[in-house]
Amino acid sequence: MELQRAKGTRDFMPEEKILRNEIVSTLKAIFERYGFYPIETPILERFSTLSAKYAGGSEILKETFKLTDQGGRQLGLRYDLTVPLARFIAMNPTLKMPFKRYQIGRVFRDGPTKLGRYREFWQCDADIVGCKDLIADVEILQMALDAFNALDLDVIIKLNSRKLLDEIFAYAEVPEEKRIDAILSIDKLEKFGWNYVEKELKELGLKEDAIKTLKDIFSIKGANKEIIENLKKILGSDSEGLKEIEEILSYFEDEKRILFTPSLARGLAYYTGPIYEIFLQKSKITSAVAAGGRYDEMIGRFSNVKREIPATGIAFGLDVIMDALKEKRKELPKTKAKVLIIPIGTKKESFKLAIQLRREGINTDLAIVERGIKKQLEYANALNIPYVIFYGEEELKKEKIKLKNMQTGEETELTKEDLINLLR
Amino acid sequence: MELQRAKGTRDFMPEEKILRNEIVSTLKAIFERYGFYPIETPILERFSTLSAKYAGGSEILKETFKLTDQGGRQLGLRYDLTVPLARFIAMNPTLKMPFKRYQIGRVFRDGPTKLGRYREFWQCDADIVGCKDLIADVEILQMALDAFNALDLDVIIKLNSRKLLDEIFAYAEVPEEKRIDAILSIDKLEKFGWNYVEKELKELGLKEDAIKTLKDIFSIKGANKEIIENLKKILGSDSEGLKEIEEILSYFEDEKRILFTPSLARGLAYYTGPIYEIFLQKSKITSAVAAGGRYDEMIGRFSNVKREIPATGIAFGLDVIMDALKEKRKELPKTKAKVLIIPIGTKKESFKLAIQLRREGINTDLAIVERGIKKQLEYANALNIPYVIFYGEEELKKEKIKLKNMQTGEETELTKEDLINLLR
Repeated sequence: MELQRAKGTRDFMPEEKILRNEIVSTLKAIFERYGFYPIETPILERFSTLSAKYAGGSEILKETFKLTDQGGRQLGLRYDLTVPLARFIAMNPTLKMPFKRYQIGRVFRDGPTKLGRYREFWQCDADIVGCKDLIADVEILQMALDAFNALDLDVIIKLNSRKLLDEIFAYAEVPEEKRIDAILSIDKLEKFGWNYVEKELKELGLKEDAIKTLKDIFSIKGANKEIIENLKKILGSDSEGLKEIEEILSYFEDEKRILFTPSLARGLAYYTGPIYEIFLQKSKITSAVAAGGRYDEMIGRFSNVKREIPATGIAFGLDVIMDALKEKRKELPKTKAKVLIIPIGTKKESFKLAIQLRREGINTDLAIVERGIKKQLEYANALNIPYVIFYGEEELKKEKIKLKNMQTGEETELTKEDLINLLR
Repeated sequence: MELQRAKGTRDFMPEEKILRNEIVSTLKAIFERYGFYPIETPILERFSTLSAKYAGGSEILKETFKLTDQGGRQLGLRYDLTVPLARFIAMNPTLKMPFKRYQIGRVFRDGPTKLGRYREFWQCDADIVGCKDLIADVEILQMALDAFNALDLDVIIKLNSRKLLDEIFAYAEVPEEKRIDAILSIDKLEKFGWNYVEKELKELGLKEDAIKTLKDIFSIKGANKEIIENLKKILGSDSEGLKEIEEILSYFEDEKRILFTPSLARGLAYYTGPIYEIFLQKSKITSAVAAGGRYDEMIGRFSNVKREIPATGIAFGLDVIMDALKEKRKELPKTKAKVLIIPIGTKKESFKLAIQLRREGINTDLAIVERGIKKQLEYANALNIPYVIFYGEEELKKEKIKLKNMQTGEETELTKEDLINLLR
């Protein structure tokens, strides 16, 4: 039997998983700093939930892993964390609002793996349910800036409004049934340029006038305020979309990292208000590291309640963030151990020393396979353990411990107390 | 459409998930304290891996969720973390040994849900691969004691050896083909008593003499040393199993929490050496909170290498540990927020204050839905947020901040500096 992983899945080696754990705990700490609390929902969901009318839509459903339990129930693996959130909200009608949940977990999509896409990957979501005020979106944008500060990554946020896009397409007299496709086309503008997009819009059957209007509008460049002023001249000063953008920007007066980008669209159909994508600066990585927006209608429709349940949220891309940090760091630690104790004929005493160091909070590895010093040092080197203790009969007698700094090669003899202070 | 979860799955509310996160980070910290490092493997595995000859066995395979990807490949959801570890070891032949990995993640079993069993649950595993020396088992037992200390749970460890069980059954002349079933029967002794087990052994077709011998042996009670001495009289002093137990216990001279328990068997067929289960003391919960043992043959056979790859490991039961901590704690926090800022006509200034507090490391929630003070206080109470700040025009003018302690009801006016010091 030849062993293989399932297609589109990965194993993570210790050095990768240590880095992933670090990113996840940074994000968790920031989410909690902003008053978000965690929930957990299962990976297995009823297929009827995943395929509900207001859930992910037909494209994503094609990529949903389906399975059946022993009772013949149709199940699926969740493809995002938003539909499970909508189900959770619907099944817990007494939740206090606003409900500020974060959730970090795996999602599954049985799609093409060509462009480095995975069939099992992680999403890190934070959403605020039950607040229509744009201050909820502002809080999330500020949180994203803090999160990337904490991760030591330079980013910019591209911001737009779905309402504004609707207004622009109405102004250009694009028929309603073509708007979603046209929006998806415009979304490619920054990446592929106007000629590419124009061709797509023609293929969609948009009239020449409409295409010209769109070109004029989406060619507007400049600082946030200039773009707003220019668009006001076209759409009028009571444009809801522009008001949204202005209100959000009013919270970020000295913030240079938020760029109003009228062509930003985002793929999903359910957005209703502000939308944004976050990109790295000074990096070869061009994919978004986080993205989100407001979706005021989806949860209420999904829950089948008569009232609107407004919501807004962000998803951080764990994999892209990991790639970005790998790019910045030369060496990734393979273990969190600070010291390796090498017993030299002192197995039991070394075990006792390990217990003592661990009680002092020092991450301590004990060389449990008996082999020559050279092999033990090779092991410590391979795992980048910074210190090694040689613990033999002699050290026991002298009540001194020999510590080797693996980086400098320096060896020192220390009392147990000094050893503990040095390692801590 | 009536919304339902998949059968045998659960949602975790914020207060439950906060507790789970706490348990997981305690276990991670202890694993790393002992020099273990994390890996991650996918939930989706090839069905051929999960059903390999030396994997989980036919019972567990009946409960394996099966599915097919778009390329027609047969896949399954992992039912434990040990088989993926064996695959990982096999696919990475250059790993440095000993390989001390920990892994915390979901596993899936499509089994009966009657007795509170779940179809999607978590395992927290730590294994040492590549060390035949029993000091590896000793390290894991000591780590378990430290983990339960850190979780503030009183436990005892029941310890036995598969080698000893083999010797006992050989001594009682139980035919080899009946031993696994007889071992599973003996495993029920502590729970159901001798009469129940005797009946099962008779049904298995064991001879009366054999049953009498087993009864005599498994009735031996007393301190660890007494049991060992009594068994030596029966099995001889060169019993491999007793030597194993003696060697392990020699590391734990003053440790009262390890109880040698000759009837402990554990269900899985692949164990080859020491085995153990860990139970709560002073608790209504009778299920094991952790369990493990040595399995020297499984990984080598699975990897199809010609050599033995020794391994030993422990699994912590996240759900039982959670139940145990729920039993001990009266109130579970619903958020990690320390303070809620209630703007009174000061939305932007309150947002700025929130930014400041968060930069100081204080977990801060901001009341983003505009509503009366009473509703805001109800929200803070429902979430058990310990402090509330009222931030109105007056406070802005006075440059003082009004803080309410939600437990005592006490209100104080503070400078920003004093506020930060108090909340930190």
